[in-house]
Amino acid sequence: MDPAARPRARRRVRAVGVQPVARAAGARAGAVPVTDLLSPSVDEELRAFFADARTRAGEYGQHYAALWESLEQQSSGGKRIRPKLVYAAYQGLGGDDRHVATRVAIAFELLHTAFLIHDDVIDRDTVRRGAPNIAARFAGRARAHGADDRACEVWGETAAVLAGDLALSRAHREIATLPVDPDRRAALLDILDRAVFVSAAGELADVVHAGSHHPPEVARVVATLEQKTAVYSFECPLTAGAVLAGAGDGAIGALARYGRLVGVAFQITDDILGVFGDPAITGKSAASDLREGKQTALTAHAATTDAWPAIASRLGDPDLDDEGADVMRQALRACGALEAARRLADEYVTLARYELDAEDLPAALRAELGDLAQRAAERAR
Amino acid sequence: MDPAARPRARRRVRAVGVQPVARAAGARAGAVPVTDLLSPSVDEELRAFFADARTRAGEYGQHYAALWESLEQQSSGGKRIRPKLVYAAYQGLGGDDRHVATRVAIAFELLHTAFLIHDDVIDRDTVRRGAPNIAARFAGRARAHGADDRACEVWGETAAVLAGDLALSRAHREIATLPVDPDRRAALLDILDRAVFVSAAGELADVVHAGSHHPPEVARVVATLEQKTAVYSFECPLTAGAVLAGAGDGAIGALARYGRLVGVAFQITDDILGVFGDPAITGKSAASDLREGKQTALTAHAATTDAWPAIASRLGDPDLDDEGADVMRQALRACGALEAARRLADEYVTLARYELDAEDLPAALRAELGDLAQRAAERAR
Repeated sequence: MDPAARPRARRRVRAVGVQPVARAAGARAGAVPVTDLLSPSVDEELRAFFADARTRAGEYGQHYAALWESLEQQSSGGKRIRPKLVYAAYQGLGGDDRHVATRVAIAFELLHTAFLIHDDVIDRDTVRRGAPNIAARFAGRARAHGADDRACEVWGETAAVLAGDLALSRAHREIATLPVDPDRRAALLDILDRAVFVSAAGELADVVHAGSHHPPEVARVVATLEQKTAVYSFECPLTAGAVLAGAGDGAIGALARYGRLVGVAFQITDDILGVFGDPAITGKSAASDLREGKQTALTAHAATTDAWPAIASRLGDPDLDDEGADVMRQALRACGALEAARRLADEYVTLARYELDAEDLPAALRAELGDLAQRAAERAR
Repeated sequence: MDPAARPRARRRVRAVGVQPVARAAGARAGAVPVTDLLSPSVDEELRAFFADARTRAGEYGQHYAALWESLEQQSSGGKRIRPKLVYAAYQGLGGDDRHVATRVAIAFELLHTAFLIHDDVIDRDTVRRGAPNIAARFAGRARAHGADDRACEVWGETAAVLAGDLALSRAHREIATLPVDPDRRAALLDILDRAVFVSAAGELADVVHAGSHHPPEVARVVATLEQKTAVYSFECPLTAGAVLAGAGDGAIGALARYGRLVGVAFQITDDILGVFGDPAITGKSAASDLREGKQTALTAHAATTDAWPAIASRLGDPDLDDEGADVMRQALRACGALEAARRLADEYVTLARYELDAEDLPAALRAELGDLAQRAAERAR
């Protein structure tokens, strides 16, 4: 591969993003999973919740109503992975109360929203899913009210910190007020507690390692992905759905392990897309992870090769431009990091599917989650 | 008053802070309120909770354990006003289950801790109760690990955002898992929901008004104090204690109104101390509120006088030094703002005590809360 042939490399990079889309679409067209039939409930319930909150907020002035509007916007447009997992486990294990499943699904969706919003506060990001985030919206609002630069920043940060707190509080409230028997609710509260506790550990580890002078190591990168994302996004929604359905410990344990493994595969793929994906599909710049010096399976593999000194010297450079990012992509590809990261994701998919062989899981659920595991490593966004 | 006589003015300013301490101490020495006998439980339970959390956190590395340690430090050293109010209402209305009262008390204390921590994120403060806050501690930790300036800032902000989320989550969990009958727990969850919802409205209003070009107005200042502080710090702990004790709507309503009124009196006094208090007693700089341009009952009164243009020109000046702050204090005193703010606090104390005449409140509780209302406007820190 010729590092000087940037335009060609660029086209190839795009192709990486496009190809799996077609594959994923094909996989989806085969059979509509039951969960897709249920997910409109989540949107309906969230709409009703936000409509009510906006009305209540209106009593405290237009800005507070606008804050709730921004929170609603931030909570929409996602892939609803967590609600789908709650439904999949719940239905797959015999649950049939659509209302309680939707409430639990919403809890995990709002937990996710809260984490994304507070993540952006930490990173001082202004864009989420390709659009201005809450901080950016409120900074704009402040500017429209004649505020100076520092005041705009404070409005934005305040709105984001509060919106995250409100979403997090609602997530807790959804589970706390769930009309199920006390033991089941207590078990769900424990799962929510674990989701918050472990993801905070992972978020902190991520930030601590990003500033580290040591080269990244695969084991540490994977442990951080598991803590920061896999537990709250995959393990906990699945175990919550299973607990809600009254499943036994065997099924719950298998789903927990499957969730952590598939979550790691999903996140390794996410990190690959963060560097090699098509920004038009992923909705985020393909240079930002490189500029931030994010430690991923890609950089962890690169650190074991001769290409590392050259890659390390540009990784985390806030002034890295598109051409510089192209050069780094080629270096990551040439040293085998892209291939190694893909292989690692595939390995986690295999391990995850292996967990589905547990005797306690019904065949239909196995099939659906097996399919989901495959898509985790093949998706384009 | 001669504006040039700064040293004398300075001594007088200190005296403002010292005098009420003696009075408050006298009031306290008269009779030890029952709540003071109960409050050790809160410290014991919090210690046990944090010891457990630190152990769990240790599995995720030393930094996460340190985060929990910082959170514990941040949650100690306060005046425990909210737990005392929960106990006062609960015991005063016939409650006798120390365990559940402590759990509710802890929920409100941790809610308060979460709000303080996230407040500091918004204000980019580094000091709380006279000591480095979580962000400052973690920035120092990052520096000890050789991080650069921006990385130190990110470690600090990350730790503070997460610590606030963890404290907020625990507050919800304390109520969600409370071993009381479902109706009572549901009512307590509603109170917690109101505490979060209204204080977020108040926090946003505070920030929005701070950047406003309009002169502050007393009614708006009071409404913001009520939303930002009085509801979650006074109304909700009192109504929670009452609900937990199984009190009727009459008593709950009276305590809610009393709480909002006494909370406003407390906060007006807090704002007076923020400008005229002794930093050695209040634990915060007596110039910082002036530098931030905080809108208070003091500035709202000043805005109605001829002294306003001169005061407004320096208010919010980040470079205001101690001498400049002394000049402003004299101007606020000379235009009658200090006296007006004190009178306003006293009026709210009177209104609060009036609510205690409700037939539904037992005499001992009336006496205790009447005493507390008096101290709200006479305290020194």
